[in-house]
Amino acid sequence: MTLFKLRQKYKPVLPQILSQPGTVVFEKSGHLPVQAEIKKLFPKTSDQSLLLGKKRSAQKVSPLKIGAVFSGGQAPGGHNILTGLFDALHSKSKLFGFLDGPSGVISGKYIELTASTLDPYRNQGGFDLLGSGRTKIETDQQLQSTLKTANDLDLDGLVIIGGDDSNTNAAFIAEYFLQHGCKTKVIGVPKTIDGDLQNQHVEISFGFDTATKIYSELIGNIAKDALSAKKYYHFIKLMGRSASHITLECALKTHPNLTLISEECHTLTEITLKIADLIEQREEIGKHYGVILIPEGLIEHMPEMSGLIKELKKSNFSLESKAIWEMLPERVQQQLLLDRDPHGNVNLSAVETEVVLIEAVTKELKKRKFKGKFSPLAHFFGYEGRAGLPSNFDANYCYALGHTAALLIDQGFTAYMAFVEHLSKPASEWSIGGLPLASQLILCQKKPVIVKAYVDLKGTPYHRLKKHADKWALEDDYQCPGPTQFFGESALTDSVPFIIQ
Amino acid sequence: MTLFKLRQKYKPVLPQILSQPGTVVFEKSGHLPVQAEIKKLFPKTSDQSLLLGKKRSAQKVSPLKIGAVFSGGQAPGGHNILTGLFDALHSKSKLFGFLDGPSGVISGKYIELTASTLDPYRNQGGFDLLGSGRTKIETDQQLQSTLKTANDLDLDGLVIIGGDDSNTNAAFIAEYFLQHGCKTKVIGVPKTIDGDLQNQHVEISFGFDTATKIYSELIGNIAKDALSAKKYYHFIKLMGRSASHITLECALKTHPNLTLISEECHTLTEITLKIADLIEQREEIGKHYGVILIPEGLIEHMPEMSGLIKELKKSNFSLESKAIWEMLPERVQQQLLLDRDPHGNVNLSAVETEVVLIEAVTKELKKRKFKGKFSPLAHFFGYEGRAGLPSNFDANYCYALGHTAALLIDQGFTAYMAFVEHLSKPASEWSIGGLPLASQLILCQKKPVIVKAYVDLKGTPYHRLKKHADKWALEDDYQCPGPTQFFGESALTDSVPFIIQ
Repeated sequence: MTLFKLRQKYKPVLPQILSQPGTVVFEKSGHLPVQAEIKKLFPKTSDQSLLLGKKRSAQKVSPLKIGAVFSGGQAPGGHNILTGLFDALHSKSKLFGFLDGPSGVISGKYIELTASTLDPYRNQGGFDLLGSGRTKIETDQQLQSTLKTANDLDLDGLVIIGGDDSNTNAAFIAEYFLQHGCKTKVIGVPKTIDGDLQNQHVEISFGFDTATKIYSELIGNIAKDALSAKKYYHFIKLMGRSASHITLECALKTHPNLTLISEECHTLTEITLKIADLIEQREEIGKHYGVILIPEGLIEHMPEMSGLIKELKKSNFSLESKAIWEMLPERVQQQLLLDRDPHGNVNLSAVETEVVLIEAVTKELKKRKFKGKFSPLAHFFGYEGRAGLPSNFDANYCYALGHTAALLIDQGFTAYMAFVEHLSKPASEWSIGGLPLASQLILCQKKPVIVKAYVDLKGTPYHRLKKHADKWALEDDYQCPGPTQFFGESALTDSVPFIIQ
Repeated sequence: MTLFKLRQKYKPVLPQILSQPGTVVFEKSGHLPVQAEIKKLFPKTSDQSLLLGKKRSAQKVSPLKIGAVFSGGQAPGGHNILTGLFDALHSKSKLFGFLDGPSGVISGKYIELTASTLDPYRNQGGFDLLGSGRTKIETDQQLQSTLKTANDLDLDGLVIIGGDDSNTNAAFIAEYFLQHGCKTKVIGVPKTIDGDLQNQHVEISFGFDTATKIYSELIGNIAKDALSAKKYYHFIKLMGRSASHITLECALKTHPNLTLISEECHTLTEITLKIADLIEQREEIGKHYGVILIPEGLIEHMPEMSGLIKELKKSNFSLESKAIWEMLPERVQQQLLLDRDPHGNVNLSAVETEVVLIEAVTKELKKRKFKGKFSPLAHFFGYEGRAGLPSNFDANYCYALGHTAALLIDQGFTAYMAFVEHLSKPASEWSIGGLPLASQLILCQKKPVIVKAYVDLKGTPYHRLKKHADKWALEDDYQCPGPTQFFGESALTDSVPFIIQ
């Protein structure tokens, strides 16, 4: 039997609190502060309390009609949000899945999710049962269409599974529905492999665990290869957008020689010198190989880059920008010049940072008249982690999130983000709750946004990295976590990300 | 406990024939033809019979001194050759491991391998216990030094763990030793993830199984991502050098929309048209995404390329070469112009074939006034598979190969390649033997070489691919094998490559 068939049969571990349907009540647990400007924009949904799920005597669970949608990039575990919703709902309920992301909500394109449609997708990766998309529900026209869909389907609830932007949209939709007398409750579910949707109750978004396990398997293998061949410097760029959580987690799992963290905001020159120093130091002890992790967002955090990016729009360079421009390989200059979004913004995530660094370091070593060997190889890991088979952690986490979203709707709450917390404990001890979406919003350039969570340079995970940095730089303490295991010892199958431990 | 610690405790399944030490005899089983020119070059080692291991009553096993060396690129399972040798040897034997590849043999750099040095490396990936290298032992000077090392260490045997070139070197060393009255027996062990070292008894080289499982996990994940986002065409290049075995195996495991096989020897134009046709056909059924596998060796098999490569040396182009030159992206033209080996040969494996194809297809679609979407993404998988944690198949296979090499030496055979066959049966039923190295050699440009095994366009694995090609092109029958499992159902943990089934 294939692995994916076997995983279909996996029964996610439910938190104790969810083990008996209809015995959870969400209790109000104090107000969270909301910005005055946000209160103005969300008059009907900003005055809400934090909710914590409590075990109580049996509650009525009603048959409901709920729609769910995937929004944005794939993250392992998404299908278990759907199965979690389905299994938590009253058996006479109806669950609809909107197709191809938010555009399916706007146009009313959906399928009904039944046991037989869902069963093959239990504990599977990808969002392929429904598809996903990056359309945002923002304009009045889009909100009107969404309202129409909700009314046409007589929805009691709409579950939006997405990242920071999608949860911001969820807040708007919830407010709009209330303002227009629509009964549909709107619940957001925190999704993104990038880990940049974190707050006091969302310790980590779903998908992060599986994706970082996949990347770490590959990084560990490459490190082992480096240590065997003793020949190459591997420059490994990792997905994660602007924040470096993925890179940090993978570093704690694999112990590379150098880990760049975007949030340190070093200049390209500083980073180049740092890498060149490392190469020289390692050469001195006879090592002309190594492993360097690079977060995708590195370039956009470089202080001198923001000037360059602005000036690129005007195509007239300051001296400082000219200096950094000349450090960039021609092919990257082309990317910066040509790869623009419809608003003319430079697409920094498409920039081959790993190639930029290799070229800059090569030049620097030449300048230093470095006599040793330097054979660099570039890698980028991203897409191979977004739709992988969910780890037990993500399978359990998503299943619990699906349950939580269903119960929030059943108990009449709207404009909340479902959360499951205390994730470093065994799944059976996890707690659940609802976080008012408005409490997560701030006004930025006149638009409400959820603040992205960056790596905290004062936090424990970063501190742990720094503590070992010197040792890992020279001593080759490479760890090879190997492929994610689904059977056998629970220490192996149920491990939890380092950054939430 | 970490996975690598747990794997240290795995007990490889030994073939029945090896289950009791000292009960195997290698019996001569007929001569294999040897080219006349090869006979001349190998007078002392070309008149040898095929050996098949047979179960007999208890044999004497003597204490031996054996040296082993890794040669060339990493392949998962290498350490189990060493543990297999160690465990098969008489307890009073000595096992030496030469450091950093054949150069360690030449210079006499080695460590003694004991239970305590070997135990942490049982069933582990990489070649890091000893390191590896690409130095060849070919010149008279190198052969003399090798002889000196063998004599100094009083070696009864030298085990060379390597690919086609390394096994060719092994043949030379064996002959040289005999000609110089050295008692050291030389045994080759067939290693390479590329799978291009195959013959009537070597069904597949070790490492191929693990590497293709790792790549297929990633390809399956990317396919799942493609099917969810419905946005990108993924052009995935795979390692494998000149032959396309890895690509073929991964295709049979994952069912991509298109699999290019170098051995089909299509021109760049033919391939470009084929991909453009696929994109148009898929667009017609509303699909603007897909997965295309590309073997690393594709470019070198393109009929028009050989002309170009030759002309690049002279830098004066024929019309045909000019046409293909102009199809290449500027950055690839640069690679071809600059990336030369010390003999001025173009380094084809460094050419970004995936980028060449993307650019050519983009131009072709423009020419066709294609109105649909085409967003390509390029990937290359190679280094992440060479040092992965060996699958059970590779762990068992290598352990048996190590035993076989030890027994061949114990029974006084030299100039043989150890083999283990009937690999599609359960490991307990595998057979063992020795293949005269000379029988695998042919003269090519006046040098003896082992002929590379290419994908057989008349063979079953290729036929299986072609049979499904039309269906897989349009229907998205993507398979997601997921990460290699080491615990649980044996159907999962002990699976065998498709291409040997």
